[in-house]
Amino acid sequence: MAVKCSGMAPPTSSRQPITGHATGEGGYRVQEGCVYIYTQIWSWTFVRITSLSVSRSPLGRWTREDSLLEMWMLPHHPSPPPHHSKPCIVCEPANLKPPPASSLLKSSPAFLLSIRAWCHSEELQNLAHQYPNIEIIKLDVEDWSSIETAAKKADELCGKGGLNLLVNNAGVNPMDSLKSGFHFQPSDMELAVRINTLGPIQMTKALLPVLRRSAKMTSNGKTIVVNISSTAGSIKHVASNYKLGNLIPYRVSKAGLNMASACMAEELRADGIICFSLHPGWVRTDMGGQKAPLSVQESVASCLKVIKNLTIQDTGSFLSYDGEVLPW
Amino acid sequence: MAVKCSGMAPPTSSRQPITGHATGEGGYRVQEGCVYIYTQIWSWTFVRITSLSVSRSPLGRWTREDSLLEMWMLPHHPSPPPHHSKPCIVCEPANLKPPPASSLLKSSPAFLLSIRAWCHSEELQNLAHQYPNIEIIKLDVEDWSSIETAAKKADELCGKGGLNLLVNNAGVNPMDSLKSGFHFQPSDMELAVRINTLGPIQMTKALLPVLRRSAKMTSNGKTIVVNISSTAGSIKHVASNYKLGNLIPYRVSKAGLNMASACMAEELRADGIICFSLHPGWVRTDMGGQKAPLSVQESVASCLKVIKNLTIQDTGSFLSYDGEVLPW
Repeated sequence: MAVKCSGMAPPTSSRQPITGHATGEGGYRVQEGCVYIYTQIWSWTFVRITSLSVSRSPLGRWTREDSLLEMWMLPHHPSPPPHHSKPCIVCEPANLKPPPASSLLKSSPAFLLSIRAWCHSEELQNLAHQYPNIEIIKLDVEDWSSIETAAKKADELCGKGGLNLLVNNAGVNPMDSLKSGFHFQPSDMELAVRINTLGPIQMTKALLPVLRRSAKMTSNGKTIVVNISSTAGSIKHVASNYKLGNLIPYRVSKAGLNMASACMAEELRADGIICFSLHPGWVRTDMGGQKAPLSVQESVASCLKVIKNLTIQDTGSFLSYDGEVLPW
Repeated sequence: MAVKCSGMAPPTSSRQPITGHATGEGGYRVQEGCVYIYTQIWSWTFVRITSLSVSRSPLGRWTREDSLLEMWMLPHHPSPPPHHSKPCIVCEPANLKPPPASSLLKSSPAFLLSIRAWCHSEELQNLAHQYPNIEIIKLDVEDWSSIETAAKKADELCGKGGLNLLVNNAGVNPMDSLKSGFHFQPSDMELAVRINTLGPIQMTKALLPVLRRSAKMTSNGKTIVVNISSTAGSIKHVASNYKLGNLIPYRVSKAGLNMASACMAEELRADGIICFSLHPGWVRTDMGGQKAPLSVQESVASCLKVIKNLTIQDTGSFLSYDGEVLPW
């Protein structure tokens, strides 16, 4: 498969890396986009990588902490052609480099890619050129027509096998500081809801035909929609962790996402598609910071275990990376 | 106090009454704006009544089911002047008429007003003319500057006693049908979140100085912010009640409101201001319909009992009209 990149551009001075805001308590931190997948739980043969552009608000603040939509699309090919047996690489900006070739070959065929900043697109393209089964689709979750276009492209690429895993991992925390309380603008909450709540819904809606195609093939095993949430979205946890990160727009958007997960689970139950919210933990990424207790590998291994063990009985749940059922 | 009405206009052919959508199971129904308050739990001396304009979407659908913001503002006057001892009338469109004068006198001094449709503004004005302690402030919760203006007016009117009860009861369900599932537009969810989630936050933020003024006066008893929520906003309830009303934008907005209540409770805890989410039950209003099990009087009596018994330990909770603690 040829490497494609529609509309990607190198970073400019107006498109800078974004430093994430994070809040912490023991084991808790608001963070996004930290999950790598590196496993063979399905016969993943290629991956779509998506990216969002980065912009500053009129007030000069970063309006988007996490510039990507990480749409992890892992289509199933029961009998992949030889060139599809190569792994798909999935990395993060902080260490956007392919693993050593030897380990790639050993761990074939599945990796997962997460790109968090537009500014890394050049690296991404270089990476994609190295691995011809990587496909890049530009996407902006704020732009509904962009989602439709990307979904159509994904539909073509996924073929008859459909799409068996969608990870909605776009995330934004529009707040300036950790102790911002009421000091946010309505537009902050509107942005958070648009990216963190509506984005996953629109993505899932647009990809429904491709997801259903996978679900109908019993040989695919499972078809799953993962909405990356956070313990900051647990309403029950607010009283205990509020002082560690009030972030009202973010919290509202993640509680909204949890409700969306529960609703989507009901919508997709009859199709046998599992949908749930996943808290990936506080991970040592560029957003999570170096104080985070979990390495990327640890978080990924745990998340994969959770995903791997899911059954349709788990649809509509809110789970932590360690499998714990979290309160709404 | 003189009756004021800023910007109210009589209904026109393009401003029609809205028929509400409601969903039901035993005792459960999505509904708004049904709660009357008719009691003497505080020395309420006047009431602000707010209204929103009604509009149709470009698709010809009603984009707003419930056209009002019901901002129930009940300021405390430890020693109200004689003309303030008259009751404030609070009614609903379906029966927007004052109770008999004799019962008014007996039940002095507190009633609560809820106006659900712009089209009733003429009636409202007539009512306000009858009772000079009723004050009408026009307000649109979608218009942040309108909220600021209304809050300033409220600040003046509330005086030194401040505001001891704010009921954020604006509500909208932008959906066309009860079985709409994924068939909503992003704008439907954006509207629901703007009115149902952001509206109460913006109202509370704007009225903070007036609320705090009340909270500082120990003679005021309690200062409370009530966010009118719904069991449709309970994420835990989704699996059991989804088929009775999927309403994804509405549910997301109410889950978001519940998170907002929990966050606002933490913001206001140090001030001694109680903030909570209240499910008013399924009530026989024009929105609830005649099949609803609760009369207005029953719902109000129950809600009042809940409000009356609140302590600061209840701040941040999600309660039903019958006092039951609801799951998030």
